Amino acid sequence: MTIQAAFYTGHKTFTLEPKEAPAPAAGEVQIDVAYVGICGTDMHVFHGNMDARVGNHRVIGHEMSGTVAALGEGVEGFAPGDRVVVRPLAHCGECPACQAGYQHICHRLKFLGLDTDGALQEKWNVPAYTVHKLPADMSLETAAMIEPLAVAVHDVKRARLQAGETALVIGGGPIGMLIAMVAQAEGAKVILSEINANRLNMAAEMGFTGLNPREGNVAEQVMEITGTKGADVVFEVSGTQPGVDLMTAAAATRGRICMVAIHAKPAQVDLFRFFWRELEMVGARVYEAADYDRAIEMIAEGLDVARLITDRHPLASVQQAFEALDGNATAMKTLIRIGETA
Amino acid sequence: MTIQAAFYTGHKTFTLEPKEAPAPAAGEVQIDVAYVGICGTDMHVFHGNMDARVGNHRVIGHEMSGTVAALGEGVEGFAPGDRVVVRPLAHCGECPACQAGYQHICHRLKFLGLDTDGALQEKWNVPAYTVHKLPADMSLETAAMIEPLAVAVHDVKRARLQAGETALVIGGGPIGMLIAMVAQAEGAKVILSEINANRLNMAAEMGFTGLNPREGNVAEQVMEITGTKGADVVFEVSGTQPGVDLMTAAAATRGRICMVAIHAKPAQVDLFRFFWRELEMVGARVYEAADYDRAIEMIAEGLDVARLITDRHPLASVQQAFEALDGNATAMKTLIRIGETA
Repeated sequence: MTIQAAFYTGHKTFTLEPKEAPAPAAGEVQIDVAYVGICGTDMHVFHGNMDARVGNHRVIGHEMSGTVAALGEGVEGFAPGDRVVVRPLAHCGECPACQAGYQHICHRLKFLGLDTDGALQEKWNVPAYTVHKLPADMSLETAAMIEPLAVAVHDVKRARLQAGETALVIGGGPIGMLIAMVAQAEGAKVILSEINANRLNMAAEMGFTGLNPREGNVAEQVMEITGTKGADVVFEVSGTQPGVDLMTAAAATRGRICMVAIHAKPAQVDLFRFFWRELEMVGARVYEAADYDRAIEMIAEGLDVARLITDRHPLASVQQAFEALDGNATAMKTLIRIGETA
Repeated sequence: MTIQAAFYTGHKTFTLEPKEAPAPAAGEVQIDVAYVGICGTDMHVFHGNMDARVGNHRVIGHEMSGTVAALGEGVEGFAPGDRVVVRPLAHCGECPACQAGYQHICHRLKFLGLDTDGALQEKWNVPAYTVHKLPADMSLETAAMIEPLAVAVHDVKRARLQAGETALVIGGGPIGMLIAMVAQAEGAKVILSEINANRLNMAAEMGFTGLNPREGNVAEQVMEITGTKGADVVFEVSGTQPGVDLMTAAAATRGRICMVAIHAKPAQVDLFRFFWRELEMVGARVYEAADYDRAIEMIAEGLDVARLITDRHPLASVQQAFEALDGNATAMKTLIRIGETA
């Protein structure tokens, strides 16, 4: 059958095109896509920064929700109509990372929706092992937040956050905000460093201590708040040099720093502080299957991630959706509605 | 009674002076010092780099061995003649680090032999809680290596090294060489990156794979040796920017980097690699009591740390000992002999 698909065609342009939807191959699940969230990575694609990787005729989109449309040969455990999300990672199974059990950071990892066609189309075929079933009553709109929530769950897990600890989140975009929410749900006291007033307001509404590095010395403020101890855990989500300076200055002795941000260039890091205070830093990338399970569970338990959804557009307006999000100081998460959904 | 003590008096100068030895105070042990090793930190003092901290009339020295001479009031568990070493750290007990159980990185840590008078004297009074008893048959000359060996034990512990893993040690001075020896003793395959030919020869004699970054690309060589996996654990002991570049380039996915070196200035760190390969970095500073116990045990079990002792001088020649070690390409560890010892 013929479906509508949004192709990134270069130069900040999406083109809606009809496309013949193939039947799901053996081992694949065909999904009626419901919602697709726009990720920071998708904005990088929009800006042309990833043309070498995605080309100029690619269906992007990887934060999504939908229902099972059809099953390929040999697929078990799913039935048409099941509400599902996709963990958009395809691993090789042979490299040293896969052999060591770290399939999510496979050395030849394919990211569905970047390295292959993604979710900005009415029907999407994916390997069955990437599909997670949702509770029958979970909102598909909210479920489109599971992918970024799983990132936050992975980050908090990597940081080994314990209830009662103080967590400093540097950078309050969607991922930083989700990390703060997960950390709070796990029992942490959360401090958020952010320069955007709208985001600081949102942080205050959610019970985080918001600090603006343009209005004070955040490291000193963290030391004051914690009685000179410092933050037990720091999440560097800003991708900036001031963020990197803050992460070491604000960390407690033996504090754990989780490197979430993608620093395209090497940054100046205070390695003396690592030695002096026996700091620890762990890199965190995407998620493992268990992080998806936990993200689904947290939403089922009532974590209100839907409050981060600020903008909604139909598939026909995908171009306007990206343009409206670009440089928008008040937007947090934009969703594209694909099918007729609840 | 009057004893001889070597005072650092500024400007690359040590002065031997007679000094009245006080009786041990309550809670103190008086030690007849046998041997004192010269540490990199002592060389920094010699060069005048630490004058602000140590002043210009300070008995330095903290790598040592000796025998118990007398006990202050209330001290139990030791008897005159016991062979002992000192863990030269005095903590405050009140700061957030002490409260969290990390007394060795107390925020007000006093390092004996820098912040107080040290071991380059015939009799040294220290708090009893800093004293570790040795087996009665352990050579006091070898025992002078326990302090730096405990550093290496602490570093290997912080890196969570497992038997069968590949460890890359960047920098083959005394600490790097001791880390390599401990890692090997714990069952690791050891690769040592070092530019000094004498040290590379010593590494080869001890069964380490020596690589010279001036003669090849060490990161590529490590990937070849490990079948593209990379080093499971990396110890950065060089304190140089090329060492920092190598630590991320040579590490395996989820590899652990132990930051041993003292980087006086921030260094350029490839934070993207931390994200991409989910690397981990842990700072490591001095040692905990258990590291001393393990270091003593490893020597008792036969770890041949005495092979690193390359130079010996009597206390009367302390000035010549420092001058001879300064910029010496073949020296590894210099010992000062203090008393009449075995």
